[in-house]
Amino acid sequence: MSGIAILGFGVVGTGVAEVIARNRLHIDQKLHSNLELKYILTRKDFPQSPFADLIVHDFSLIENDPTVDVVVETIGGSGSAREFTERALRAGKSVVTSNKELVAAHGYELMSLAREKGVSYLYEASVGGGIPIIRPLKQCLAANEISEIYGILNGTTNYILTRMIGAGLSFEDALAEAQAHGYAEADPTADVDGIDACRKICILASLAFGRHVDPSAVSTEGIKRVSLSDVNYASSCGCKIKLLGRAVMGQDGKIRIFVAPHLIPERDPLAGVEAIFNAITVRGNAIGNVMFYGQGAGKLPTASAVVADVMEAVSRKSDPKYLDWGPGGEDVAAPKDDGIYTWYVRAKEPDALPEGMKQLRFPGEPDGERAFLTQPLTRDDLEKILRNVQVCAAFRLLKTDQ
Amino acid sequence: MSGIAILGFGVVGTGVAEVIARNRLHIDQKLHSNLELKYILTRKDFPQSPFADLIVHDFSLIENDPTVDVVVETIGGSGSAREFTERALRAGKSVVTSNKELVAAHGYELMSLAREKGVSYLYEASVGGGIPIIRPLKQCLAANEISEIYGILNGTTNYILTRMIGAGLSFEDALAEAQAHGYAEADPTADVDGIDACRKICILASLAFGRHVDPSAVSTEGIKRVSLSDVNYASSCGCKIKLLGRAVMGQDGKIRIFVAPHLIPERDPLAGVEAIFNAITVRGNAIGNVMFYGQGAGKLPTASAVVADVMEAVSRKSDPKYLDWGPGGEDVAAPKDDGIYTWYVRAKEPDALPEGMKQLRFPGEPDGERAFLTQPLTRDDLEKILRNVQVCAAFRLLKTDQ
Repeated sequence: MSGIAILGFGVVGTGVAEVIARNRLHIDQKLHSNLELKYILTRKDFPQSPFADLIVHDFSLIENDPTVDVVVETIGGSGSAREFTERALRAGKSVVTSNKELVAAHGYELMSLAREKGVSYLYEASVGGGIPIIRPLKQCLAANEISEIYGILNGTTNYILTRMIGAGLSFEDALAEAQAHGYAEADPTADVDGIDACRKICILASLAFGRHVDPSAVSTEGIKRVSLSDVNYASSCGCKIKLLGRAVMGQDGKIRIFVAPHLIPERDPLAGVEAIFNAITVRGNAIGNVMFYGQGAGKLPTASAVVADVMEAVSRKSDPKYLDWGPGGEDVAAPKDDGIYTWYVRAKEPDALPEGMKQLRFPGEPDGERAFLTQPLTRDDLEKILRNVQVCAAFRLLKTDQ
Repeated sequence: MSGIAILGFGVVGTGVAEVIARNRLHIDQKLHSNLELKYILTRKDFPQSPFADLIVHDFSLIENDPTVDVVVETIGGSGSAREFTERALRAGKSVVTSNKELVAAHGYELMSLAREKGVSYLYEASVGGGIPIIRPLKQCLAANEISEIYGILNGTTNYILTRMIGAGLSFEDALAEAQAHGYAEADPTADVDGIDACRKICILASLAFGRHVDPSAVSTEGIKRVSLSDVNYASSCGCKIKLLGRAVMGQDGKIRIFVAPHLIPERDPLAGVEAIFNAITVRGNAIGNVMFYGQGAGKLPTASAVVADVMEAVSRKSDPKYLDWGPGGEDVAAPKDDGIYTWYVRAKEPDALPEGMKQLRFPGEPDGERAFLTQPLTRDDLEKILRNVQVCAAFRLLKTDQ
């Protein structure tokens, strides 16, 4: 028998309790042991909940109960979530989390603490919701040198872009629709500005390249500047606009890491990732491109990833698997992205197109602006060429190898 | 230091030797130990190979060398591959294989033998080439009841269909092109008739549902009957034709398992899986649909999966992870697929269309035949309705939930 405590009883916390209850037989059979949900830590009471009896308000009850083996942290943020995680690890309990903010900011310290205490700190649910990516990235791709990892990491922005592309909605209308469906928060900043995607690409890059990548090192651009004409110009050259988090290992051993809207050729499988779905592509020197696809958020998908981690923590209690990485530092990330890309540029009507640019057109395009694709260029060289041009949008084109 | 022997020196065997040599530093760093390739068992000599010194012709050298920890079997088939696998396991060595025929036919016995001997028998490379699917299916989806698993499991047939769809080639011309590129064997029967896909869906179903599913239980239809008019009719209703292996868990606890061409709606991510790529979708009760995508064959992708398994076998030498399943039996699979599907039917010009059918048209469709989509029906009911119709093709439409 293994005792479980859940911290936080929002969407994910509730989902974890439900998945444990619903798939109990199945889980016990796979584990050859029982999971017993013993505590749920919340601020409020939930007298109507089927789990009302388990609710407590004082973390020290959990911390001091030796029958609690695994603590599930679904509080979010870096405040009490961090404190309780540290206290649980120090008390010799494994911790499973869906909290990408905490893992992206403090993953290295927390994983080091877990290793010191001989327990697990697992975070499969922090990236891609239910999509298995953390463990496959570490284990199944072990034989590869990974050169790049990128993906559609945020369901809210992908939903907004999908509705702009598919239904011709403006950004504002698509956002309002996403909010009405519960796919976007009342304050959508963290999603729309790319902050959430930034945290996730940091976690993936840290794991893929073995050093802690701090979110502050990441150039982060959201989707607020994506207009309907960008969507239409992209379509005119067979592309869809998607927000990607990308991390590329350079020849110099430093990571180029950024979050930005990209034009994705329609034949690339990422272009078919619609609505709230997420997908992550990993490029290895032996395996080529591999893509993982599924629901990147949502109660049950995320809870399913959490519960799989709980089962892992329980079954490897005496021999934890460390999915950790080394410390961060100035030498981890390159100061800026010096990669060479074909750029999509939309600009206020310039006197003349810069030379060698391929102009894009679509029926009904707005007066007074032009859009074009460049030759392959670094961002610095792009900026030089566009010195006298009033740029409205400049997005990278994803090179696809299918 | 861990000693490795490779059995067979064809495409995969050569790839394994190359990946171990090429990523040596990376692998040793991840393992905190060295892999030493000690033997390559072949019938012929390869005096020009950089690995010429390692070549041996007598398996007992490997069997009797206590410094060999892991045997990599890339011989294929169920003859000497099976014999050497058994002898290696009995000698207390872990075995890693890419041999789907052997795993599909004898996986249960070989895994039981491995468990008895306390060693690993790993087969990630047997399905989906380099795509991580076996371990994610077992570990990451542990918290789910899996209801269905299906995928594009054979790169040869997917290449042929892609060229029929994209370039309008006939089946024969597309096959000839695939052979010219080395994507199809001189004798393409195992691919074209669905036998290869059948073995892979058996392995996936056995793992997902926990009982050995024998290939003989699987209704297997290849792509020989897919004509260019099927491709065009499918396109007229927004679909692409793909060969799927599918395994569905019924309410009665029995598996419906089959290999057959399907119409896939273009909005489904599987429709975007082109050429020699493979993709596998898993449907779980918490996670929803998750898809894994990548190169389903090829020297380095397959070798990458093999080497990851070798690393797993080495790092878990004292505590092997068993990715195994229970015995087969009459009660595992339902005798036939009684699922309800929308069917695509192409028939010699019938006197009248059966009632309630939606006729498909495309410009330039051949005289003397018709194609239509049915209401949702079982195969039995379909056959009743079509009793007096001369059917040329009848394929299921994949229900998509995106």
